Amino acid sequence: MIEPILNHRSIRKYKEQTFERLLLTDILTAASRASTTGNMQVYSIVVTTDKKLKEKLWEAHFRQNMVLQAPVILTFCADFNRFNKWCRQRKAEPGYDNFLSLLTAAIDALLAAQNAALAAESHALGICYLGTTLYKADMIIEILDLHRGVIPVTTLTVGYPDESPGLTDRLPLEAIVHYEKYKEYTPEDIDEIYAEKDNAALTLKLLKENNLETLAQVFTQKRYTKKDNEAISRKLLEVIRKQGFGM
Amino acid sequence: MIEPILNHRSIRKYKEQTFERLLLTDILTAASRASTTGNMQVYSIVVTTDKKLKEKLWEAHFRQNMVLQAPVILTFCADFNRFNKWCRQRKAEPGYDNFLSLLTAAIDALLAAQNAALAAESHALGICYLGTTLYKADMIIEILDLHRGVIPVTTLTVGYPDESPGLTDRLPLEAIVHYEKYKEYTPEDIDEIYAEKDNAALTLKLLKENNLETLAQVFTQKRYTKKDNEAISRKLLEVIRKQGFGM
Repeated sequence: MIEPILNHRSIRKYKEQTFERLLLTDILTAASRASTTGNMQVYSIVVTTDKKLKEKLWEAHFRQNMVLQAPVILTFCADFNRFNKWCRQRKAEPGYDNFLSLLTAAIDALLAAQNAALAAESHALGICYLGTTLYKADMIIEILDLHRGVIPVTTLTVGYPDESPGLTDRLPLEAIVHYEKYKEYTPEDIDEIYAEKDNAALTLKLLKENNLETLAQVFTQKRYTKKDNEAISRKLLEVIRKQGFGM
Repeated sequence: MIEPILNHRSIRKYKEQTFERLLLTDILTAASRASTTGNMQVYSIVVTTDKKLKEKLWEAHFRQNMVLQAPVILTFCADFNRFNKWCRQRKAEPGYDNFLSLLTAAIDALLAAQNAALAAESHALGICYLGTTLYKADMIIEILDLHRGVIPVTTLTVGYPDESPGLTDRLPLEAIVHYEKYKEYTPEDIDEIYAEKDNAALTLKLLKENNLETLAQVFTQKRYTKKDNEAISRKLLEVIRKQGFGM
Protein backbone atom coordinates (compact mmCIF):
# COMPACT_ATOMS: atom_id res chain seq x y z
CA MET A 1 0.00 0.00 0.00
CA ILE A 2 2.61 2.42 1.24
CA GLU A 3 5.08 1.26 -1.42
CA PRO A 4 4.66 3.98 -4.08
CA ILE A 5 4.90 6.60 -1.32
CA LEU A 6 8.15 5.23 0.04
CA ASN A 7 9.62 4.56 -3.39
CA HIS A 8 8.99 7.98 -4.85
CA ARG A 9 11.76 9.37 -7.04
CA SER A 10 11.46 12.46 -9.19
CA ILE A 11 11.86 11.36 -12.81
CA ARG A 12 13.57 13.80 -15.15
CA LYS A 13 14.05 11.53 -18.18
CA TYR A 14 11.12 9.93 -19.97
CA LYS A 15 10.63 7.36 -22.70
CA GLU A 16 8.93 8.56 -25.84
CA GLN A 17 5.97 6.21 -25.57
CA THR A 18 2.84 7.75 -24.16
CA PHE A 19 0.42 5.95 -21.88
CA GLU A 20 -3.16 4.82 -22.25
CA ARG A 21 -6.08 7.15 -21.86
CA LEU A 22 -7.42 4.75 -19.25
CA LEU A 23 -4.38 5.40 -17.05
CA LEU A 24 -4.81 9.13 -17.46
CA THR A 25 -8.44 8.85 -16.38
CA ASP A 26 -7.34 6.83 -13.40
CA ILE A 27 -4.80 9.51 -12.41
CA LEU A 28 -7.35 12.30 -12.80
CA THR A 29 -9.99 10.37 -10.88
CA ALA A 30 -7.48 9.85 -8.07
CA ALA A 31 -6.85 13.61 -8.06
CA SER A 32 -10.57 14.30 -7.81
CA ARG A 33 -10.94 12.14 -4.69
CA ALA A 34 -8.58 14.30 -2.60
CA SER A 35 -10.00 16.26 0.32
CA THR A 36 -11.27 19.69 -0.68
CA THR A 37 -12.45 22.56 1.51
CA GLY A 38 -16.22 22.44 1.88
CA ASN A 39 -16.29 20.04 -1.08
CA MET A 40 -16.01 23.11 -3.30
CA GLN A 41 -13.31 21.56 -5.53
CA VAL A 42 -11.85 24.96 -6.25
CA TYR A 43 -9.12 23.73 -8.56
CA SER A 44 -8.67 22.72 -12.18
CA ILE A 45 -6.23 20.43 -13.93
CA VAL A 46 -4.96 21.26 -17.39
CA VAL A 47 -3.74 18.21 -19.31
CA THR A 48 -1.29 19.24 -22.01
CA THR A 49 0.03 16.79 -24.63
CA ASP A 50 0.24 19.01 -27.72
CA LYS A 51 3.83 19.39 -28.92
CA LYS A 52 3.64 23.11 -29.62
CA LEU A 53 2.02 23.89 -26.30
CA LYS A 54 4.58 21.74 -24.51
CA GLU A 55 7.34 23.73 -26.19
CA LYS A 56 5.84 26.91 -24.80
CA LEU A 57 5.51 25.36 -21.36
CA TRP A 58 9.12 24.21 -21.65
CA GLU A 59 10.15 27.83 -22.13
CA ALA A 60 8.17 28.83 -19.06
CA HIS A 61 9.65 26.03 -16.97
CA PHE A 62 13.23 27.22 -17.43
CA ARG A 63 13.70 24.90 -20.43
CA GLN A 64 13.81 21.80 -18.30
CA ASN A 65 13.90 18.98 -20.81
CA MET A 66 11.46 16.73 -19.02
CA VAL A 67 8.68 19.12 -20.10
CA LEU A 68 9.40 18.26 -23.73
CA GLN A 69 10.04 14.58 -23.08
CA ALA A 70 7.13 13.65 -20.85
CA PRO A 71 4.04 12.79 -22.91
CA VAL A 72 1.70 14.48 -20.44
CA ILE A 73 2.01 17.72 -18.51
CA LEU A 74 -0.52 18.30 -15.73
CA THR A 75 -0.87 21.88 -14.54
CA PHE A 76 -2.73 22.10 -11.24
CA CYS A 77 -4.47 25.41 -10.75
CA ALA A 78 -6.20 27.15 -7.89
CA ASP A 79 -9.55 27.92 -9.53
CA PHE A 80 -12.39 30.00 -8.13
CA ASN A 81 -13.59 30.94 -11.62
CA ARG A 82 -15.92 27.94 -12.00
CA PHE A 83 -17.28 28.25 -8.46
CA ASN A 84 -17.86 32.00 -8.82
CA LYS A 85 -19.71 31.48 -12.09
CA TRP A 86 -21.92 28.89 -10.42
CA CYS A 87 -22.64 31.29 -7.55
CA ARG A 88 -23.59 34.10 -9.92
CA GLN A 89 -25.89 31.80 -11.90
CA ARG A 90 -27.55 30.78 -8.63
CA LYS A 91 -28.43 34.21 -7.22
CA ALA A 92 -25.45 34.20 -4.87
CA GLU A 93 -22.73 36.86 -4.73
CA PRO A 94 -19.35 35.16 -4.23
CA GLY A 95 -16.89 36.78 -1.83
CA TYR A 96 -13.85 34.81 -2.90
CA ASP A 97 -11.63 37.52 -4.34
CA ASN A 98 -9.29 37.50 -1.35
CA PHE A 99 -6.05 35.97 -0.06
CA LEU A 100 -7.73 33.28 2.06
CA SER A 101 -9.68 32.03 -0.95
CA LEU A 102 -6.50 31.87 -3.00
CA LEU A 103 -4.81 29.75 -0.33
CA THR A 104 -7.89 27.56 0.04
CA ALA A 105 -7.90 26.90 -3.68
CA ALA A 106 -4.13 26.31 -3.74
CA ILE A 107 -4.49 23.71 -0.98
CA ASP A 108 -7.21 21.95 -2.98
CA ALA A 109 -4.96 21.93 -6.05
CA LEU A 110 -1.95 20.58 -4.16
CA LEU A 111 -3.75 17.72 -2.43
CA ALA A 112 -5.19 16.74 -5.80
CA ALA A 113 -1.71 16.92 -7.34
CA GLN A 114 -0.21 14.59 -4.77
CA ASN A 115 -3.00 12.07 -5.32
CA ALA A 116 -2.34 12.25 -9.05
CA ALA A 117 1.40 11.80 -8.50
CA LEU A 118 0.89 8.69 -6.39
CA ALA A 119 -1.70 7.23 -8.74
CA ALA A 120 0.73 7.69 -11.62
CA GLU A 121 3.57 6.10 -9.67
CA SER A 122 1.43 3.17 -8.67
CA HIS A 123 1.00 2.53 -12.42
CA ALA A 124 4.78 2.47 -12.92
CA LEU A 125 4.77 5.95 -14.39
CA GLY A 126 7.27 8.56 -13.25
CA ILE A 127 6.52 12.12 -12.21
CA CYS A 128 8.37 15.31 -11.42
CA TYR A 129 7.00 18.42 -9.70
CA LEU A 130 7.95 21.71 -11.34
CA GLY A 131 8.51 24.50 -8.83
CA THR A 132 8.95 26.84 -11.77
CA THR A 133 5.14 26.97 -12.01
CA LEU A 134 5.04 29.80 -9.46
CA TYR A 135 8.09 31.56 -10.92
CA LYS A 136 6.53 31.86 -14.34
CA ALA A 137 2.87 31.95 -13.40
CA ASP A 138 2.28 34.88 -15.77
CA MET A 139 3.65 32.99 -18.80
CA ILE A 140 1.73 29.84 -17.91
CA ILE A 141 -1.48 31.82 -17.52
CA GLU A 142 -0.99 33.12 -21.04
CA ILE A 143 0.03 29.79 -22.58
CA LEU A 144 -2.86 27.85 -21.06
CA ASP A 145 -5.47 30.64 -21.33
CA LEU A 146 -6.11 30.64 -17.60
CA HIS A 147 -9.01 32.93 -16.84
CA ARG A 148 -9.45 35.43 -14.03
CA GLY A 149 -9.78 33.51 -10.77
CA VAL A 150 -7.33 30.83 -11.93
CA ILE A 151 -3.66 30.59 -10.89
CA PRO A 152 -1.25 27.75 -11.69
CA VAL A 153 0.15 26.35 -8.45
CA THR A 154 2.17 23.32 -9.45
CA THR A 155 2.90 21.12 -12.44
CA LEU A 156 3.57 17.42 -12.86
CA THR A 157 5.40 15.88 -15.78
CA VAL A 158 4.10 12.33 -16.29
CA GLY A 159 5.48 9.49 -18.39
CA TYR A 160 7.34 6.21 -18.41
CA PRO A 161 10.73 6.67 -16.71
CA ASP A 162 13.88 6.46 -18.79
CA GLU A 163 16.12 6.57 -15.74
CA SER A 164 16.08 4.90 -12.36
CA PRO A 165 17.65 7.24 -9.86
CA GLY A 166 18.20 6.17 -6.26
CA LEU A 167 16.15 7.47 -3.37
CA THR A 168 16.93 11.08 -2.53
CA ASP A 169 18.40 11.70 0.91
CA ARG A 170 16.12 13.12 3.57
CA LEU A 171 16.81 14.71 6.92
CA PRO A 172 16.38 12.29 9.84
CA LEU A 173 12.72 12.05 10.80
CA GLU A 174 13.40 13.70 14.18
CA ALA A 175 14.56 16.78 12.29
CA ILE A 176 11.13 17.53 10.87
CA VAL A 177 8.88 16.08 13.59
CA HIS A 178 8.07 17.83 16.87
CA TYR A 179 6.23 16.13 19.69
CA GLU A 180 3.38 17.97 21.39
CA LYS A 181 4.82 21.44 20.63
CA TYR A 182 7.45 22.94 18.36
CA LYS A 183 10.91 22.53 19.82
CA GLU A 184 13.38 25.21 18.81
CA TYR A 185 16.62 23.90 17.30
CA THR A 186 19.87 24.45 19.19
CA PRO A 187 23.09 24.99 17.20
CA GLU A 188 24.01 21.43 18.14
CA ASP A 189 20.68 20.13 16.80
CA ILE A 190 21.34 21.87 13.49
CA ASP A 191 24.83 20.38 13.25
CA GLU A 192 23.49 16.93 13.95
CA ILE A 193 20.47 17.16 11.66
CA TYR A 194 22.45 18.41 8.68
CA ALA A 195 25.64 16.37 9.27
CA GLU A 196 24.86 13.75 6.64
CA LYS A 197 23.83 16.32 4.03
CA ASP A 198 26.81 18.59 4.79
CA ASN A 199 29.24 15.75 4.28
CA ALA A 200 27.63 13.83 1.43
CA ALA A 201 29.69 13.04 -1.65
CA LEU A 202 27.24 15.05 -3.77
CA THR A 203 27.74 18.05 -1.49
CA LEU A 204 31.51 17.92 -1.78
CA LYS A 205 31.16 17.73 -5.56
CA LEU A 206 28.83 20.75 -5.57
CA LEU A 207 31.21 22.76 -3.40
CA LYS A 208 34.09 22.07 -5.74
CA GLU A 209 32.02 22.91 -8.84
CA ASN A 210 30.76 26.15 -7.34
CA ASN A 211 33.94 27.05 -5.51
CA LEU A 212 31.99 27.55 -2.30
CA GLU A 213 32.63 26.60 1.28
CA THR A 214 29.26 25.23 2.43
CA LEU A 215 26.19 23.61 0.90
CA ALA A 216 24.03 26.34 2.42
CA GLN A 217 25.96 28.84 0.29
CA VAL A 218 25.03 26.84 -2.81
CA PHE A 219 21.41 27.47 -1.86
CA THR A 220 21.70 31.13 -0.89
CA GLN A 221 24.20 32.21 -3.58
CA LYS A 222 23.31 29.95 -6.53
CA ARG A 223 19.99 28.15 -6.38
CA TYR A 224 17.61 30.36 -4.45
CA THR A 225 19.08 33.82 -4.01
CA LYS A 226 17.45 36.62 -2.05
CA LYS A 227 17.45 38.81 -5.14
CA ASP A 228 15.68 36.23 -7.35
CA ASN A 229 13.22 35.29 -4.61
CA GLU A 230 12.24 38.88 -4.02
CA ALA A 231 11.84 39.63 -7.70
CA ILE A 232 9.70 36.52 -8.20
CA SER A 233 7.66 37.31 -5.09
CA ARG A 234 6.85 40.79 -6.36
CA LYS A 235 5.81 39.47 -9.76
CA LEU A 236 3.79 36.66 -8.28
CA LEU A 237 1.88 39.03 -6.02
CA GLU A 238 1.08 41.16 -9.06
CA VAL A 239 -0.15 38.10 -10.96
CA ILE A 240 -2.31 37.06 -8.02
CA ARG A 241 -3.92 40.49 -7.81
CA LYS A 242 -4.39 40.62 -11.57
CA GLN A 243 -6.14 37.24 -11.50
CA GLY A 244 -8.63 38.64 -9.03
CA PHE A 245 -7.38 37.83 -5.55
CA GLY A 246 -6.98 41.15 -3.74
CA MET A 247 -4.51 41.55 -0.89
CA MET B 1 -2.04 2.71 -3.61
CA ILE B 2 -5.03 3.61 -5.71
CA GLU B 3 -7.41 1.94 -3.29
CA PRO B 4 -6.95 4.24 -0.29
CA ILE B 5 -6.99 7.19 -2.69
CA LEU B 6 -10.32 6.21 -4.22
CA ASN B 7 -11.84 5.19 -0.89
CA HIS B 8 -10.99 8.35 0.99
CA ARG B 9 -13.65 9.64 3.36
CA SER B 10 -13.13 12.39 5.90
CA ILE B 11 -13.64 10.86 9.33
CA ARG B 12 -15.16 13.09 11.99
CA LYS B 13 -15.84 10.49 14.72
CA TYR B 14 -13.03 8.46 16.25
CA LYS B 15 -12.75 5.52 18.61
CA GLU B 16 -11.00 6.17 21.90
CA GLN B 17 -8.21 3.67 21.31
CA THR B 18 -4.97 5.15 20.07
CA PHE B 19 -2.67 3.49 17.56
CA GLU B 20 0.80 2.04 17.76
CA ARG B 21 3.88 4.17 17.70
CA LEU B 22 5.06 2.06 14.77
CA LEU B 23 2.11 3.20 12.69
CA LEU B 24 2.80 6.80 13.58
CA THR B 25 6.41 6.41 12.46
CA ASP B 26 5.17 4.88 9.24
CA ILE B 27 2.84 7.84 8.62
CA LEU B 28 5.59 10.37 9.36
CA THR B 29 8.09 8.51 7.18
CA ALA B 30 5.57 8.54 4.34
CA ALA B 31 5.21 12.31 4.82
CA SER B 32 8.98 12.75 4.63
CA ARG B 33 9.20 11.00 1.25
CA ALA B 34 7.03 13.58 -0.51
CA SER B 35 8.60 15.79 -3.16
CA THR B 36 10.10 18.96 -1.71
CA THR B 37 11.51 22.00 -3.52
CA GLY B 38 15.27 21.64 -3.91
CA ASN B 39 15.14 18.89 -1.29
CA MET B 40 15.08 21.64 1.32
CA GLN B 41 12.25 20.02 3.33
CA VAL B 42 11.04 23.40 4.50
CA TYR B 43 8.22 22.09 6.65
CA SER B 44 7.69 20.64 10.10
CA ILE B 45 5.07 18.32 11.53
CA VAL B 46 3.85 18.80 15.09
CA VAL B 47 2.40 15.61 16.59
CA THR B 48 0.02 16.46 19.42
CA THR B 49 -1.50 13.81 21.70
CA ASP B 50 -1.56 15.59 25.07
CA LYS B 51 -5.11 16.09 26.32
CA LYS B 52 -4.65 19.67 27.51
CA LEU B 53 -2.95 20.75 24.30
CA LYS B 54 -5.65 19.05 22.27
CA GLU B 55 -8.26 21.01 24.22
CA LYS B 56 -6.52 24.21 23.24
CA LEU B 57 -6.31 23.11 19.62
CA TRP B 58 -9.99 22.20 19.77
CA GLU B 59 -10.75 25.81 20.74
CA ALA B 60 -8.66 27.03 17.81
CA HIS B 61 -10.35 24.64 15.38
CA PHE B 62 -13.85 26.03 16.01
CA ARG B 63 -14.48 23.39 18.69
CA GLN B 64 -14.83 20.60 16.15
CA ASN B 65 -15.13 17.49 18.29
CA MET B 66 -12.83 15.32 16.20
CA VAL B 67 -9.91 17.33 17.57
CA LEU B 68 -10.72 16.08 21.07
CA GLN B 69 -11.63 12.56 19.94
CA ALA B 70 -8.78 11.72 17.59
CA PRO B 71 -5.78 10.35 19.50
CA VAL B 72 -3.30 12.19 17.27
CA ILE B 73 -3.37 15.67 15.77
CA LEU B 74 -0.80 16.41 13.09
CA THR B 75 -0.16 20.09 12.37
CA PHE B 76 1.72 20.60 9.11
CA CYS B 77 3.71 23.81 9.06
CA ALA B 78 5.58 25.77 6.44
CA ASP B 79 8.97 26.06 8.16
CA PHE B 80 11.96 28.10 7.02
CA ASN B 81 13.21 28.48 10.60
CA ARG B 82 15.30 25.30 10.57
CA PHE B 83 16.71 25.96 7.11
CA ASN B 84 17.55 29.58 7.95
CA LYS B 85 19.35 28.51 11.11
CA TRP B 86 21.37 26.00 9.12
CA CYS B 87 22.29 28.69 6.57
CA ARG B 88 23.44 31.08 9.30
CA GLN B 89 25.54 28.38 10.94
CA ARG B 90 27.13 27.67 7.56
CA LYS B 91 28.28 31.19 6.62
CA ALA B 92 25.32 31.72 4.30
CA GLU B 93 22.79 34.56 4.54
CA PRO B 94 19.30 33.19 3.81
CA GLY B 95 16.98 35.29 1.65
CA TYR B 96 13.80 33.42 2.48
CA ASP B 97 11.77 36.07 4.27
CA ASN B 98 9.45 36.64 1.30
CA PHE B 99 6.13 35.53 -0.16
CA LEU B 100 7.59 33.01 -2.62
CA SER B 101 9.44 31.24 0.18
CA LEU B 102 6.26 31.05 2.21
CA LEU B 103 4.41 29.43 -0.71
CA THR B 104 7.33 27.09 -1.39
CA ALA B 105 7.27 25.94 2.22
CA ALA B 106 3.48 25.64 2.22
CA ILE B 107 3.64 23.41 -0.86
CA ASP B 108 6.22 21.19 0.88
CA ALA B 109 3.96 20.94 3.93
CA LEU B 110 0.87 20.08 1.88
CA LEU B 111 2.45 17.34 -0.21
CA ALA B 112 3.81 15.82 2.99
CA ALA B 113 0.35 16.06 4.56
CA GLN B 114 -1.31 14.20 1.72
CA ASN B 115 1.28 11.43 1.91
CA ALA B 116 0.61 11.18 5.65
CA ALA B 117 -3.14 11.09 5.06
CA LEU B 118 -2.86 8.25 2.56
CA ALA B 119 -0.40 6.30 4.68
CA ALA B 120 -2.80 6.56 7.62
CA GLU B 121 -5.74 5.45 5.50
CA SER B 122 -3.81 2.52 4.10
CA HIS B 123 -3.46 1.37 7.74
CA ALA B 124 -7.24 1.52 8.23
CA LEU B 125 -6.97 4.77 10.15
CA GLY B 126 -9.27 7.68 9.40
CA ILE B 127 -8.25 11.28 8.82
CA CYS B 128 -9.84 14.68 8.46
CA TYR B 129 -8.26 17.88 7.17
CA LEU B 130 -8.95 20.99 9.22
CA GLY B 131 -9.29 24.12 7.10
CA THR B 132 -9.57 26.09 10.33
CA THR B 133 -5.76 25.90 10.55
CA LEU B 134 -5.45 29.02 8.40
CA TYR B 135 -8.36 30.78 10.09
CA LYS B 136 -6.81 30.52 13.52
CA ALA B 137 -3.12 30.47 12.60
CA ASP B 138 -2.35 33.02 15.32
CA MET B 139 -3.86 30.85 18.06
CA ILE B 140 -2.17 27.70 16.78
CA ILE B 141 1.19 29.48 16.63
CA GLU B 142 0.76 30.34 20.30
CA ILE B 143 -0.52 26.92 21.40
CA LEU B 144 2.23 24.99 19.60
CA ASP B 145 5.04 27.51 20.24
CA LEU B 146 5.70 27.94 16.53
CA HIS B 147 8.77 30.09 16.06
CA ARG B 148 9.39 32.90 13.60
CA GLY B 149 9.61 31.40 10.12
CA VAL B 150 6.95 28.79 10.93
CA ILE B 151 3.29 28.96 9.88
CA PRO B 152 0.66 26.23 10.31
CA VAL B 153 -0.83 25.38 6.92
CA THR B 154 -3.06 22.40 7.53
CA THR B 155 -3.97 19.89 10.21
CA LEU B 156 -4.92 16.22 10.14
CA THR B 157 -6.87 14.45 12.84
CA VAL B 158 -5.84 10.79 12.87
CA GLY B 159 -7.42 7.79 14.60
CA TYR B 160 -9.54 4.70 14.18
CA PRO B 161 -12.88 5.62 12.58
CA ASP B 162 -16.04 5.39 14.64
CA GLU B 163 -18.25 6.05 11.65
CA SER B 164 -18.33 4.84 8.07
CA PRO B 165 -19.70 7.59 5.89
CA GLY B 166 -20.31 7.06 2.19
CA LEU B 167 -18.16 8.57 -0.51
CA THR B 168 -18.66 12.30 -0.87
CA ASP B 169 -20.08 13.48 -4.19
CA ARG B 170 -17.67 15.06 -6.65
CA LEU B 171 -18.23 17.12 -9.76
CA PRO B 172 -17.96 15.08 -12.98
CA LEU B 173 -14.31 14.69 -13.98
CA GLU B 174 -14.87 16.82 -17.11
CA ALA B 175 -15.79 19.70 -14.83
CA ILE B 176 -12.34 19.99 -13.34
CA VAL B 177 -10.18 18.76 -16.23
CA HIS B 178 -9.23 20.85 -19.26
CA TYR B 179 -7.51 19.40 -22.30
CA GLU B 180 -4.53 21.25 -23.75
CA LYS B 181 -5.71 24.69 -22.53
CA TYR B 182 -8.21 26.07 -20.07
CA LYS B 183 -11.69 26.10 -21.54
CA GLU B 184 -13.97 28.80 -20.18
CA TYR B 185 -17.30 27.56 -18.84
CA THR B 186 -20.49 28.58 -20.62
CA PRO B 187 -23.65 29.10 -18.54
CA GLU B 188 -24.84 25.77 -19.95
CA ASP B 189 -21.64 24.06 -18.82
CA ILE B 190 -22.16 25.38 -15.31
CA ASP B 191 -25.76 24.15 -15.25
CA GLU B 192 -24.68 20.71 -16.40
CA ILE B 193 -21.67 20.42 -14.11
CA TYR B 194 -23.56 21.41 -10.99
CA ALA B 195 -26.89 19.72 -11.82
CA GLU B 196 -26.32 16.72 -9.56
CA LYS B 197 -25.10 18.85 -6.65
CA ASP B 198 -27.91 21.41 -7.08
CA ASN B 199 -30.56 18.73 -6.92
CA ALA B 200 -29.09 16.32 -4.37
CA ALA B 201 -31.23 15.30 -1.41
CA LEU B 202 -28.65 16.82 0.94
CA THR B 203 -28.91 20.12 -0.91
CA LEU B 204 -32.69 20.23 -0.62
CA LYS B 205 -32.35 19.52 3.10
CA LEU B 206 -29.84 22.34 3.49
CA LEU B 207 -32.03 24.79 1.61
CA LYS B 208 -34.96 24.02 3.87
CA GLU B 209 -32.85 24.28 7.04
CA ASN B 210 -31.34 27.59 5.96
CA ASN B 211 -34.45 28.96 4.31
CA LEU B 212 -32.46 29.72 1.16
CA GLU B 213 -33.15 29.30 -2.51
CA THR B 214 -29.88 27.85 -3.86
CA LEU B 215 -26.95 25.82 -2.57
CA ALA B 216 -24.58 28.55 -3.74
CA GLN B 217 -26.33 30.89 -1.28
CA VAL B 218 -25.57 28.43 1.52
CA PHE B 219 -21.89 28.90 0.64
CA THR B 220 -21.92 32.67 0.16
CA GLN B 221 -24.33 33.57 2.98
CA LYS B 222 -23.65 30.90 5.61
CA ARG B 223 -20.47 28.89 5.22
CA TYR B 224 -17.91 31.15 3.57
CA THR B 225 -19.13 34.73 3.61
CA LYS B 226 -17.28 37.63 2.03
CA LYS B 227 -17.13 39.40 5.39
CA ASP B 228 -15.58 36.42 7.20
CA ASN B 229 -13.17 35.67 4.37
CA GLU B 230 -11.94 39.23 4.24
CA ALA B 231 -11.49 39.46 8.00
CA ILE B 232 -9.59 36.15 8.06
CA SER B 233 -7.47 37.21 5.07
CA ARG B 234 -6.43 40.42 6.80
CA LYS B 235 -5.50 38.60 9.99
CA LEU B 236 -3.68 35.85 8.13
CA LEU B 237 -1.59 38.36 6.20
CA GLU B 238 -0.66 40.00 9.49
CA VAL B 239 0.34 36.64 10.96
CA ILE B 240 2.43 35.83 7.89
CA ARG B 241 4.29 39.14 8.13
CA LYS B 242 4.76 38.74 11.87
CA GLN B 243 6.26 35.29 11.34
CA GLY B 244 8.86 36.79 9.08
CA PHE B 245 7.55 36.55 5.53
CA GLY B 246 7.41 40.11 4.17
CA MET B 247 4.98 41.07 1.41
